[in-house]
Amino acid sequence: MSSLTYRKAGVDVHAAAEFVARIRPLAGSTHTGDVVTPPSGFAGLIRLPAGTGTETPLLAATCDGVGTKLLVARAMGEYEGLGRDLVAMSVNDLAAAGSRPLLFLDYLATARLDLAQLESIVRGVAAACCDVGCVLLGGETAEMPDVYADGGLDLAGFAVGIVEGNALPDPSTMRSGDIVVALPSSGLHANGFSLTRRILLERSELDLEAFLPELGRTLGAELLRPTALYVEPALGLMGDVSVRAAAHVTGGGLLGRAGAMLPGGLSMVIAPDTYPRPPIIELIRTLGDLSWEETAATFNMGLGFLVVVAPQDAPTAEERGWLRVGELVAGDGKVDLGYTTG
Amino acid sequence: MSSLTYRKAGVDVHAAAEFVARIRPLAGSTHTGDVVTPPSGFAGLIRLPAGTGTETPLLAATCDGVGTKLLVARAMGEYEGLGRDLVAMSVNDLAAAGSRPLLFLDYLATARLDLAQLESIVRGVAAACCDVGCVLLGGETAEMPDVYADGGLDLAGFAVGIVEGNALPDPSTMRSGDIVVALPSSGLHANGFSLTRRILLERSELDLEAFLPELGRTLGAELLRPTALYVEPALGLMGDVSVRAAAHVTGGGLLGRAGAMLPGGLSMVIAPDTYPRPPIIELIRTLGDLSWEETAATFNMGLGFLVVVAPQDAPTAEERGWLRVGELVAGDGKVDLGYTTG
Repeated sequence: MSSLTYRKAGVDVHAAAEFVARIRPLAGSTHTGDVVTPPSGFAGLIRLPAGTGTETPLLAATCDGVGTKLLVARAMGEYEGLGRDLVAMSVNDLAAAGSRPLLFLDYLATARLDLAQLESIVRGVAAACCDVGCVLLGGETAEMPDVYADGGLDLAGFAVGIVEGNALPDPSTMRSGDIVVALPSSGLHANGFSLTRRILLERSELDLEAFLPELGRTLGAELLRPTALYVEPALGLMGDVSVRAAAHVTGGGLLGRAGAMLPGGLSMVIAPDTYPRPPIIELIRTLGDLSWEETAATFNMGLGFLVVVAPQDAPTAEERGWLRVGELVAGDGKVDLGYTTG
Repeated sequence: MSSLTYRKAGVDVHAAAEFVARIRPLAGSTHTGDVVTPPSGFAGLIRLPAGTGTETPLLAATCDGVGTKLLVARAMGEYEGLGRDLVAMSVNDLAAAGSRPLLFLDYLATARLDLAQLESIVRGVAAACCDVGCVLLGGETAEMPDVYADGGLDLAGFAVGIVEGNALPDPSTMRSGDIVVALPSSGLHANGFSLTRRILLERSELDLEAFLPELGRTLGAELLRPTALYVEPALGLMGDVSVRAAAHVTGGGLLGRAGAMLPGGLSMVIAPDTYPRPPIIELIRTLGDLSWEETAATFNMGLGFLVVVAPQDAPTAEERGWLRVGELVAGDGKVDLGYTTG
């Protein structure tokens, strides 16, 4: 029996060191003066921003992955957008809690370290972090040949933000007559991809490289459009007006996330002609013969971020570019999206 | 073509909802009065502890997985300890940065939601969080049938802690003559499992269910012993004496992590007769015909947490139960573990 080394057992510690060297400048590009060099390399450190108000600040924390969108990225060999998705999935949830993102960490797990692939992901992560003023403070890269199939990988992202307690949206203030404003999505985001792949790639056998006129791009390029970042517009609006509730539209789709915003005694009506419905969602619905309800319970339908404001605050939101899409009415927690069959 | 639903596409949103209901009380068991109900369910909120000193507090953040230890857990059908490992891997790194863990989030990804399996993991996560006074603030469960093989899963953990800037270990104060104190490991922890499985399970064809007298338990039980939690003893010592450097011994083994502590001009000598070497590591080394260097560059060798203190502070550490295992000497960054062949 020959002597084993850890490299032979499937874990390449030298490639891991090379990867860390490659991503260091990418992470560094996100750093601010608040980042503190740690006494050891295994925990990142960041100075807390000074509070601006009188309340004790709160930390908000969230974690998310990109689901099976990563299988489309793998088929296309394009990973940078996936890094942006990973950040967006977490920091948009922070923004829905009124929180400014402070730091982000990524977990990248793969069968075998592919430096170019992982570097592309981290480049996207770092770019999105820069866009929202969030520090990429660290991460973990795991090489697990017996957990992931050849070429397989998974990603998880973690974000921490800060919010003064009195800046939190307060859903208990929602009233009938309140206005729903929203920002458009940039396509599917990173949601509903198991169903999407099943319908478009398996059942309908569409080619990711095919140019589809109704999309104005190839199917692959459409599916890989990165999730929009809502941090700046959401926190900007929250700085101007008192926001009653906010939601990042992801798992559960527009129907699920809008429904989760509602307290007892209220329903939401969203008018279908107030926002553009992405052609990709129409394509999936038609080819999959999906019901409207199933479609809206899976996909964002074109609205990536929802906010409920008092009627007098709606004009401010509209001036800031938000779409006025609906309102709250007396009811029992229903969401009426106004779609009709056919 | 029949109409598709998201459940048919491999994502069971109802099982996901059931899982969330099951783990809510587990997460709740970790909550303190500082946890704040979020305005939406997709970001956890926690009040920052009031600072005790005059310095601006720092946040420390880290993330880690459990590597291929999860394959052993899967073979044994025992997952609770894996949840404890997941927490330990992250919070021990926080402790090495002098930081008190505040919050933890877990990412659980699997081919298909197995509620009993996932609940066991989260039970272990919650128990370890309680042990170190850390709040399980949230997490993400992803069902990705086309990413993970049947029965496959992966875990990532993310922890945030807080530390006053003047309480950080300061490696620049290390001097020749400083004393290395350490705490014993509880076996392999969650490290070196690709090599371990290759040697013990594949090459040597050992049975996980076999009782091995030198281990005093079955091989499977030994391999699954959860990673020790070093938060309380490490922060306790740091409260008593000024710690110069600290390390949680994980990837890179005792050799790698001890080496990473050293600044220029110093080496470390650790005496092999000052601590118990776990029989499991001897078994792996012998059956794998591994060199001492390879063994010590992969495994913790019996020491799970290292701290460097000034000579006058060593007795305090020993009174607190730390093992006095070595010292710093003039040198060029070498770690001498004193092992001899045979």
